[in-house]
Amino acid sequence: MVPLPDLLAEPVVRAALLEDLGRAGDITTDAILGSSSQAITASLVARGAGTIAGIGVASLAFRLLDSSAEITIERPDGSDVQRNERLAVVRAPARAVLSAERTALNFLCRLSGIATATRELVQAVRGTRAAIACTRKTTPGLRALEKYAVRVGGGMNHRFGLDDAMLVKDNHVAAAGGVRAALERARRAAGHLVKIELEVDDLDQLREALDAGLADAILLDNFSPSELRAAVALAGGRVILEASGSVNPATIRAIAETGVDLISSGWITHSAPALDIGLDAEVPPARP
Amino acid sequence: MVPLPDLLAEPVVRAALLEDLGRAGDITTDAILGSSSQAITASLVARGAGTIAGIGVASLAFRLLDSSAEITIERPDGSDVQRNERLAVVRAPARAVLSAERTALNFLCRLSGIATATRELVQAVRGTRAAIACTRKTTPGLRALEKYAVRVGGGMNHRFGLDDAMLVKDNHVAAAGGVRAALERARRAAGHLVKIELEVDDLDQLREALDAGLADAILLDNFSPSELRAAVALAGGRVILEASGSVNPATIRAIAETGVDLISSGWITHSAPALDIGLDAEVPPARP
Amino acid sequence: MVPLPDLLAEPVVRAALLEDLGRAGDITTDAILGSSSQAITASLVARGAGTIAGIGVASLAFRLLDSSAEITIERPDGSDVQRNERLAVVRAPARAVLSAERTALNFLCRLSGIATATRELVQAVRGTRAAIACTRKTTPGLRALEKYAVRVGGGMNHRFGLDDAMLVKDNHVAAAGGVRAALERARRAAGHLVKIELEVDDLDQLREALDAGLADAILLDNFSPSELRAAVALAGGRVILEASGSVNPATIRAIAETGVDLISSGWITHSAPALDIGLDAEVPPARP
Amino acid sequence: MVPLPDLLAEPVVRAALLEDLGRAGDITTDAILGSSSQAITASLVARGAGTIAGIGVASLAFRLLDSSAEITIERPDGSDVQRNERLAVVRAPARAVLSAERTALNFLCRLSGIATATRELVQAVRGTRAAIACTRKTTPGLRALEKYAVRVGGGMNHRFGLDDAMLVKDNHVAAAGGVRAALERARRAAGHLVKIELEVDDLDQLREALDAGLADAILLDNFSPSELRAAVALAGGRVILEASGSVNPATIRAIAETGVDLISSGWITHSAPALDIGLDAEVPPARP
Amino acid sequence: MVPLPDLLAEPVVRAALLEDLGRAGDITTDAILGSSSQAITASLVARGAGTIAGIGVASLAFRLLDSSAEITIERPDGSDVQRNERLAVVRAPARAVLSAERTALNFLCRLSGIATATRELVQAVRGTRAAIACTRKTTPGLRALEKYAVRVGGGMNHRFGLDDAMLVKDNHVAAAGGVRAALERARRAAGHLVKIELEVDDLDQLREALDAGLADAILLDNFSPSELRAAVALAGGRVILEASGSVNPATIRAIAETGVDLISSGWITHSAPALDIGLDAEVPPARP
Amino acid sequence: MVPLPDLLAEPVVRAALLEDLGRAGDITTDAILGSSSQAITASLVARGAGTIAGIGVASLAFRLLDSSAEITIERPDGSDVQRNERLAVVRAPARAVLSAERTALNFLCRLSGIATATRELVQAVRGTRAAIACTRKTTPGLRALEKYAVRVGGGMNHRFGLDDAMLVKDNHVAAAGGVRAALERARRAAGHLVKIELEVDDLDQLREALDAGLADAILLDNFSPSELRAAVALAGGRVILEASGSVNPATIRAIAETGVDLISSGWITHSAPALDIGLDAEVPPARP
Repeated sequence: MVPLPDLLAEPVVRAALLEDLGRAGDITTDAILGSSSQAITASLVARGAGTIAGIGVASLAFRLLDSSAEITIERPDGSDVQRNERLAVVRAPARAVLSAERTALNFLCRLSGIATATRELVQAVRGTRAAIACTRKTTPGLRALEKYAVRVGGGMNHRFGLDDAMLVKDNHVAAAGGVRAALERARRAAGHLVKIELEVDDLDQLREALDAGLADAILLDNFSPSELRAAVALAGGRVILEASGSVNPATIRAIAETGVDLISSGWITHSAPALDIGLDAEVPPARP
Repeated sequence: MVPLPDLLAEPVVRAALLEDLGRAGDITTDAILGSSSQAITASLVARGAGTIAGIGVASLAFRLLDSSAEITIERPDGSDVQRNERLAVVRAPARAVLSAERTALNFLCRLSGIATATRELVQAVRGTRAAIACTRKTTPGLRALEKYAVRVGGGMNHRFGLDDAMLVKDNHVAAAGGVRAALERARRAAGHLVKIELEVDDLDQLREALDAGLADAILLDNFSPSELRAAVALAGGRVILEASGSVNPATIRAIAETGVDLISSGWITHSAPALDIGLDAEVPPARP
Repeated sequence: MVPLPDLLAEPVVRAALLEDLGRAGDITTDAILGSSSQAITASLVARGAGTIAGIGVASLAFRLLDSSAEITIERPDGSDVQRNERLAVVRAPARAVLSAERTALNFLCRLSGIATATRELVQAVRGTRAAIACTRKTTPGLRALEKYAVRVGGGMNHRFGLDDAMLVKDNHVAAAGGVRAALERARRAAGHLVKIELEVDDLDQLREALDAGLADAILLDNFSPSELRAAVALAGGRVILEASGSVNPATIRAIAETGVDLISSGWITHSAPALDIGLDAEVPPARP
Repeated sequence: MVPLPDLLAEPVVRAALLEDLGRAGDITTDAILGSSSQAITASLVARGAGTIAGIGVASLAFRLLDSSAEITIERPDGSDVQRNERLAVVRAPARAVLSAERTALNFLCRLSGIATATRELVQAVRGTRAAIACTRKTTPGLRALEKYAVRVGGGMNHRFGLDDAMLVKDNHVAAAGGVRAALERARRAAGHLVKIELEVDDLDQLREALDAGLADAILLDNFSPSELRAAVALAGGRVILEASGSVNPATIRAIAETGVDLISSGWITHSAPALDIGLDAEVPPARP
Repeated sequence: MVPLPDLLAEPVVRAALLEDLGRAGDITTDAILGSSSQAITASLVARGAGTIAGIGVASLAFRLLDSSAEITIERPDGSDVQRNERLAVVRAPARAVLSAERTALNFLCRLSGIATATRELVQAVRGTRAAIACTRKTTPGLRALEKYAVRVGGGMNHRFGLDDAMLVKDNHVAAAGGVRAALERARRAAGHLVKIELEVDDLDQLREALDAGLADAILLDNFSPSELRAAVALAGGRVILEASGSVNPATIRAIAETGVDLISSGWITHSAPALDIGLDAEVPPARP
Repeated sequence: MVPLPDLLAEPVVRAALLEDLGRAGDITTDAILGSSSQAITASLVARGAGTIAGIGVASLAFRLLDSSAEITIERPDGSDVQRNERLAVVRAPARAVLSAERTALNFLCRLSGIATATRELVQAVRGTRAAIACTRKTTPGLRALEKYAVRVGGGMNHRFGLDDAMLVKDNHVAAAGGVRAALERARRAAGHLVKIELEVDDLDQLREALDAGLADAILLDNFSPSELRAAVALAGGRVILEASGSVNPATIRAIAETGVDLISSGWITHSAPALDIGLDAEVPPARP
């Protein structure tokens, strides 16, 4: 797995630490440990089974709070882990470990939750031609990190924003006065490295789009499996077909078996439960 | 429901819009609508049942993108809505509506998901003395907004960060060399407006804490219902008792019926599924 | 021309105003005008011929300094103007006009310079199939604005950054151990909305790329016109061909006539001379 | 040459890297190199002749992306280099070299272009008393860096903003009701470390200013060489005389020979062509 | 004394350095030292007697300007020092020492002034039960640092903001229609870790508050010593009593002797004179 | 008095409001007023006598929290007011008034304190030729505002930072190897709009500086009145003379009567006591 550059993650992690430290810092740890700078060893441990994502981001939380922190990663991003497996060992002053713990875990649990949900869908479609993709339904401020977690889980990234590809949706078609007109406007404006995907609601629109021949991909929105099958037949491999709508672990296999190229899911980013991960520390008595 | 001041929400919403617009802006809408400034009317509509939170935040997304946008809120934060209910009407240039849609919904669906999950727990404990509280297991960067959504759902806020109350946890007790020593260090350092809560793992620690008499609240971590009952009896109302660990809609009633004052749940912020909300627009044909 | 959303331009314009105001503000205007709030009328006037870009950005400079400023745009972005033509009229307090003047002009002259240079190239290739594209050789911090100016001038945008399309360059080919291997790695990693362009140095590499059949576009780096002609013949329309290297007003026609689809130029962003535009104000005597 | 403190350059370089990395990072390099951390050696090489400025800023780009990057500077800022001369050697992981390359070069080429243009003017006036100065016609966001490049090229800095010296321009004179009144208002408001320069349009205004005796410098705007000569005679060394308007390599010698102290040029910052500098890397095959 | 985490102080110190460096940097030191990187040794020395706070913040100023700077702290925060005592030794390039000096001292003198004023009040009430607390009357942007300085001086922190405890003031009482109603509204809204303090203007209000029994603390605003004494008797230890208003070194002993628990002072943050501290450097001649 | 542009003050005021609101906002006012949007009228009233500065900055605090706030200024910046004088009337929703009150006052009291201290010194030297100037001993982050307050009080601004004028201090003289060498290096590097001031410690250094004739001003550091008198005689009007060191209301008249042009005081910014100003509101009962 290609890790995110620290430069991308750092502003978000720094802001999260400051959000938690507030104006007074960690007043409990200050009261208990005082100015002791004793270093301790702590372990990041899975409390449930899943796919790890964000271990480097979590490490950054400890290192930003104390530059002497050392993290040894034992289960890198992309690892499938079981309950009670140790993911990494943190060696840092007790103060830094205790103060950065929640921030580190908030990133790690959320991103691992997304990777786990993604992998669940990826495995559900194994053997079909369908890939799993995410959407723009990500947490405000965390898009780069959450899209990374999708990749870690084996999923494919869809657009990163409104600006890196065209997705012509129903309202755009309405504004243009029809599928062909919309595609023509899109193609005229698109740069040579910009792909165009069209969202269609039914097979008639699909036919119109295939006739126009201007889309790189077509999103079949809320098609039933039998409609999807018809769409696949109609397209005959001329264009990438993406299914979306009502995608969940229970329905996805049937969707995949229709022969679509791609199934996109907002659920893996907006509703994936966090993976439970904790920090176990050995804290010796300290004079405050 | 007391709304958040716009001043608090604005930096987050502005950053989310810029995250979505990227460097090139909404290239699809630009291609289709061109420089048309025609205004349209669109509705925010629930696609599932739940509790609304963040309608003001969503409004801000439209208004930041186009200061002429007007939003009429029909179901304010805290409303319980059914599938297909209209929440608000947006009147703004088509360009702004289409470009801000996803950002507005990303906030609204997430915050409403949290409010809905919170309300589910609140209703599950109705009739007991237990209140529902959140934790610091929130999304990095969104703590103020997510804690607000908990309030909207009828929950209580726990600490907002490491700095506004003391929570003496197992590692702190270990560092201090015992419950009493930890509480004494905490009390010595705490200002007169700072409360102290102690986390205990068993009834012995609870006894020690009650004897010390220095905690405003005690968090009973991963106690079974029968242990919780014993704890309630032991405390005899001298201190606020909070249950945490393994809290979910299936277990919470039994926990509440033990007589604890408070049940905290990380699940309502880190794993609540988003509430499905969409935007329905009437877009007339536009010359680009 | 579809204007940039103010939300995208505002942080840059605000920062530029603050960069000019420094810590003490406009001390000359303060000394001369004192606290007079008298409004004046001023004209933005072309001092040379060219294509206008950034008139909205310039307006924003005046409006951010004084929200009562009113700007009437007479020659919108994309207009070809002659020396001494009036572009817009500003009505605002004299203090705001004088203090924002340089910032407004710095944006307007630079962006219009880019639009003018772009249009010059566009006109030089008129009648051929070649479009003009920009590169990532833009001014740090101004990429969104400068790419916009290229569009205003009739050019096409290339990638906006390292993340919205793949450009496989010579060093990538070396790292992969060959053209085909590089393209295969790229294709495997690319999402369905990500296009891949390959940079080749000679006709052999071009042949290898055409055989592999995995690139959406091929950049012919520093090919002579006769090599370009050979490349066009070889490709036979199967892939978009982009010429780059040694592109300037003197050489571009010959390049375009080879039949390439696209000619990219760093010169239009990194070396285009600013268009000379000034502000003419009628300032009546004011009591300080 | 006294280098800029990194503290001043860092925010701008960091922002430029993030502007290029976008939300997904360098997807091409990620696809080709995968998580390989192999270090390579690369050279920054002049592709044209000129004066180098910004080699430290370029180094910062590599170091911010990877703190292990080591840059050996062979031709420091201020060096006059020939085509194909090596300026510096970069030793860093291949990923960092390839991802930071464009950002580093965008700074280095622009700043070297400014230094080169400045030196061209400086050499054109050699032997006269005239120094070359820049203006506030700099790129928004880059004023500190561009003014530094002017110093590197042998030029003098004019005001850095509206706040560090007074420049009384035609509109100020109009507002004050005359040259003398304007100078009196300026002098009354100016602190003891603030100099005052007056812009005049003709010899009459110059006379009035000399009579008033309150200006430290006088800017002769758009004077012909013969008018400049008359102005020099009139001033008789009592005040610094600055010529501006229509300054370019072809005209500057004649202006300098009139005896003015200073010639200011917006051209060296707003229209200087970038100096062509490239990066040559030896990239060994890497397993992704 | 538990030091503030660097993460909290760094953004403020960095901004302060940039505020002082402006756009051109330290032009005097550049002119004199040129690019010399010679290291020197300098001492931070008290020019008056007082309590030191902020020595770590001052160190950060030197280290942010030059990461090779080494600071040896001899008199840590909380030390009472005499005139001419050496507080710390700085070893860094002369350029960094001279350029960071004023920023480092601005923090150190202000924070030490606050610690000194706090300690003065703390010592004035020695032997009574009264503690000294600060208020929210702090310098905009420096609240975390100034509240830290109060702790260093032996004082207690009051609220850090509007959000970490409730302080029900006269206007709140008026809005609620009375003391009891206000307290009931506050209690209903307050989380279990939020304390409530009520401000009262006279003994009648105090009685009403004591009857309501809902406040954790009561602020007696502008009570005379005899009224304070009556209040202490009335409360009988049931609630924390805070005196405020007209607190200064001359009046505080009499206030403390009334038996109140807490005396709060805005003066220690908004009006404490800075402690005079200077930097003595041995600068050898340097070739520029 | 020429007001600061809002653009300069806004980032500081916004940051201060957010510093006070924290993550949860004004929880007391929320509890008491609920979502009531009732507007009230409140008065800013002097509680002591002094010179007002910052009334516009205080207004901005209310307006940023609620854009409907209207402030009528009765005693603008620069007014000398007596105890109990009303400065301004605020009309805004009660929530905004109560939540912004402290932030508004923190600015207003501090800036008015500086203006008051400045005016005290200005009046103490009335009738002499001496002007009063500030230093760079300002609060980190507030330099622009505090220097403005000095102007409001009738003082003169000294340098705004390290970059807008040269101040050659003792360490610079040591590094250069003498006064003349230091001045020569400074003059060689200084732009034509940059003034040079030299700090001298005794009359010998003054003589050397006068002989060199390269300084625009000379700072006589810690000279006794008789030494100052000797310095004035020696300089004979050839250069601006500034006295500094041990300047306070008790000593300043004697210093001024020596004939120096300028007396600078760090005290007016780093140690001026805040002017006591309060807010009186009429808050009617509100249903929460």
